[in-house]
Amino acid sequence: MDRKAPIGVFDSGVGGLTVAREIMRQIPNERIVYFGDTARVPYGSKSKDTVTMYSRQIIRFLKTEGVKAIVIACNTASAYALDTMVKEFDIPIIGVVKPGAKVAVDTTKNGRVGLIGTDATIQSGVYDKYIKELNSDIEVIGKACPLFCPLVEEGMLNDTITNQVAERYLSYLKDKDIDTLIMGCTHYPLISSTIGEIMGDKVNLVNPAFETAIELRKLLFRENLYNQSDVDSPSLMYRFYVSDAAEKFRRFADSILPVDISVTKQINIEQY
Amino acid sequence: MDRKAPIGVFDSGVGGLTVAREIMRQIPNERIVYFGDTARVPYGSKSKDTVTMYSRQIIRFLKTEGVKAIVIACNTASAYALDTMVKEFDIPIIGVVKPGAKVAVDTTKNGRVGLIGTDATIQSGVYDKYIKELNSDIEVIGKACPLFCPLVEEGMLNDTITNQVAERYLSYLKDKDIDTLIMGCTHYPLISSTIGEIMGDKVNLVNPAFETAIELRKLLFRENLYNQSDVDSPSLMYRFYVSDAAEKFRRFADSILPVDISVTKQINIEQY
Repeated sequence: MDRKAPIGVFDSGVGGLTVAREIMRQIPNERIVYFGDTARVPYGSKSKDTVTMYSRQIIRFLKTEGVKAIVIACNTASAYALDTMVKEFDIPIIGVVKPGAKVAVDTTKNGRVGLIGTDATIQSGVYDKYIKELNSDIEVIGKACPLFCPLVEEGMLNDTITNQVAERYLSYLKDKDIDTLIMGCTHYPLISSTIGEIMGDKVNLVNPAFETAIELRKLLFRENLYNQSDVDSPSLMYRFYVSDAAEKFRRFADSILPVDISVTKQINIEQY
Repeated sequence: MDRKAPIGVFDSGVGGLTVAREIMRQIPNERIVYFGDTARVPYGSKSKDTVTMYSRQIIRFLKTEGVKAIVIACNTASAYALDTMVKEFDIPIIGVVKPGAKVAVDTTKNGRVGLIGTDATIQSGVYDKYIKELNSDIEVIGKACPLFCPLVEEGMLNDTITNQVAERYLSYLKDKDIDTLIMGCTHYPLISSTIGEIMGDKVNLVNPAFETAIELRKLLFRENLYNQSDVDSPSLMYRFYVSDAAEKFRRFADSILPVDISVTKQINIEQY
């Protein structure tokens, strides 16, 4: 496998850009091919079978782009599809859930960890499973926050309505004596200041994207896949694909990423 | 064509059930095959090409069910795909936009009509086009309300947060001197009391679903497709299909429809 080959990163839409951002920051030598499934977003209210089928199509597409490893930059797809995808494909694949679980275990002092995410991520119980594997004494208290994604997608990042929705969702967690809260959806770091203010100073917020980039770097070293070449310009390093019209995606990406997105290309993902 | 054949009705998800409900009330003799594209909901933030492709797949599927006519019970799909679908298929197809435009024209006295809908429906300008064809003096003032769909899908029908979101969206329309407001998304009739309270008594709310059922009845008579047989039990009259897990859909349908939904079947819509 070519060390200069890109990393494939995918998400249901724009949320996974927070993961791509961490990879750009922490492993600036690596090329990235990002796919956002904007034609079928959101995943969080859909079933395991559907999300697994979507993930399979996307990985097939990313393989046509010659990627050397894949990051499932979506908590729902990581929760539902990672194990199946690892079995089906002969390429290293990591998700965001296991790294997120690890950092939560390292962070908590009192053994009480909160988790917010989509309906699918919470129902899957997968964070709980990974955390218990690392430390069976830790208790995980989950709360689905289905409206956070549409609010973030609408760009309502500092907004009284988002505050009230957050107040309502998080009130469930406030009297549970947690000292750590996993932001178990890649959209949520974009409203972390709102979440942090409501939860207070004593609760540490965990962003799985950060740890995922570290895990990816370790994986690339371990598998001798780390790119040692010089860094090119962003337009050569990063390619972006979407399954639906690119304009909204590009606006959002421009507001999140440290680099300009020059070209975003639309593909028909159902063909893969 | 068999007069006893069912009517095909489709929507991106549950919203179109408000149209199915009107058909059940107004034309109780007709069988219905309903398809909700719950794997790819929502349509309102997606492009014309994508929504057209989805509509084409769904109509191909509905034809395999032997339908005699099709109702596009989704404003976004009606706005983007109706004209193309009418050209492509040899079966009567109607949407919800033209009937909604007609009743708005009949309703307004001062010639100032408000329109709320998804981003896609508002941007398409299709309500404006149909209304101007009927009466070029009428002015249409549109406002996209993208959060209404997720709020309705979350079941937050009588909720202070939904009220505030509605207050914010509708404040744009309150000083525009409209006397008629088209609920240009099939989800919105489910929060019509909230919308009505904010807009006040002087604004008439138009629900295109009602007029669509009337249009359908006229069409069936005109084409000699009206079913004159006796009514069977609901389980024989109505079939429901979805593209993603049926449980949530069934719960929602049970709360909207006047009949029990006994069986909801999941199909792989991408194969059509």
